Amino acid sequence: MGKPCTKEKILLKGARFIHEKGYNNTGLQEILGAAGVPKGSFYFYFKNKEDFGLQAMDTYAAFIRHISEKFLCDVTLPPLSRLERFFDYYLLHFENMDLRYGCPIGNLMQEMSDLSEPFRKKICSIYDDICSLIQQCIVDAQQTGCIPENIDAVAAAQYIFDSWEGAVMHMKMAKSTRPLINYKKILFSTLLKHPD
Amino acid sequence: MGKPCTKEKILLKGARFIHEKGYNNTGLQEILGAAGVPKGSFYFYFKNKEDFGLQAMDTYAAFIRHISEKFLCDVTLPPLSRLERFFDYYLLHFENMDLRYGCPIGNLMQEMSDLSEPFRKKICSIYDDICSLIQQCIVDAQQTGCIPENIDAVAAAQYIFDSWEGAVMHMKMAKSTRPLINYKKILFSTLLKHPD
Repeated sequence: MGKPCTKEKILLKGARFIHEKGYNNTGLQEILGAAGVPKGSFYFYFKNKEDFGLQAMDTYAAFIRHISEKFLCDVTLPPLSRLERFFDYYLLHFENMDLRYGCPIGNLMQEMSDLSEPFRKKICSIYDDICSLIQQCIVDAQQTGCIPENIDAVAAAQYIFDSWEGAVMHMKMAKSTRPLINYKKILFSTLLKHPD
Repeated sequence: MGKPCTKEKILLKGARFIHEKGYNNTGLQEILGAAGVPKGSFYFYFKNKEDFGLQAMDTYAAFIRHISEKFLCDVTLPPLSRLERFFDYYLLHFENMDLRYGCPIGNLMQEMSDLSEPFRKKICSIYDDICSLIQQCIVDAQQTGCIPENIDAVAAAQYIFDSWEGAVMHMKMAKSTRPLINYKKILFSTLLKHPD
């Protein structure tokens, strides 16, 4: 029986592997090796690899929720500045990772949506969670007259999040921050432009 | 020694598996089984799995190039209608596949960009190829006064393609065409809006 922290150790090591290499490309053996725990210990905490993967997703979700709230819910800033600072945080974060690995939620959305229904549902719920924070920024921006009132906030939030995920994917491929800078520039001068 | 069509058979079956399940999640054995060829036959045509994967990408690239040219280069239509018909084609195409699997280029961009430099380079080149056709539509739309002249056509084309890939990824996760419809509606009423 492992100590209480063994489970977290496996989750942290495993979440990192999945982020770097993908879920299907990560072997149980390498996670156990990196965490320094025997196989029996793994099956004490997790039913199987999928159960482990789903719990690893909670690790990403908690991190992203923390960052999203920090920036998107910072009511000391104007609504569009919150969004801008959120994107800037991630731009720096990706630079610190040498533009590798991208967004774990985007990665698993792409890899797992057709392969596992429990994965798909969990990714949907994490996606909706972040999207609702973006949506609140849109609503606040409308109420303060920063963007037109006739924008559909739900649709706009999804468009903003989807396009961001597309730009992050391009960044990973091109090994350049240009797609993210490009994204920000176009988004804030079109959909999120101050009404004339 | 296989007949001339054996290689194509392996490529077609393999490309389908990779599209449906991902590159790392596709075993050589299942490709061979589906194509009905022995292992020796595979190694007669391909150096290894990566060599096969790169050639399978050419299969997607040829298909996408064909579709892209058909719609994006159709000069009988106004430039923005070409783009719209391109998106509409894929919307129907994805519906015909029950909103599964998404775009093979986006999938491999996400999965392989950090795992194989030859893959990354090939995806970059396919991406640039499609993007240049979108860019030409933007330039044509500018020249016919459909969109403002001060838009950076290179940046706009990348933004349009990236955001589309993000929306396709969301479609795959949500099992709904809503993100694609949403994308089209917002794109054509903001960045690609007729100048007032």
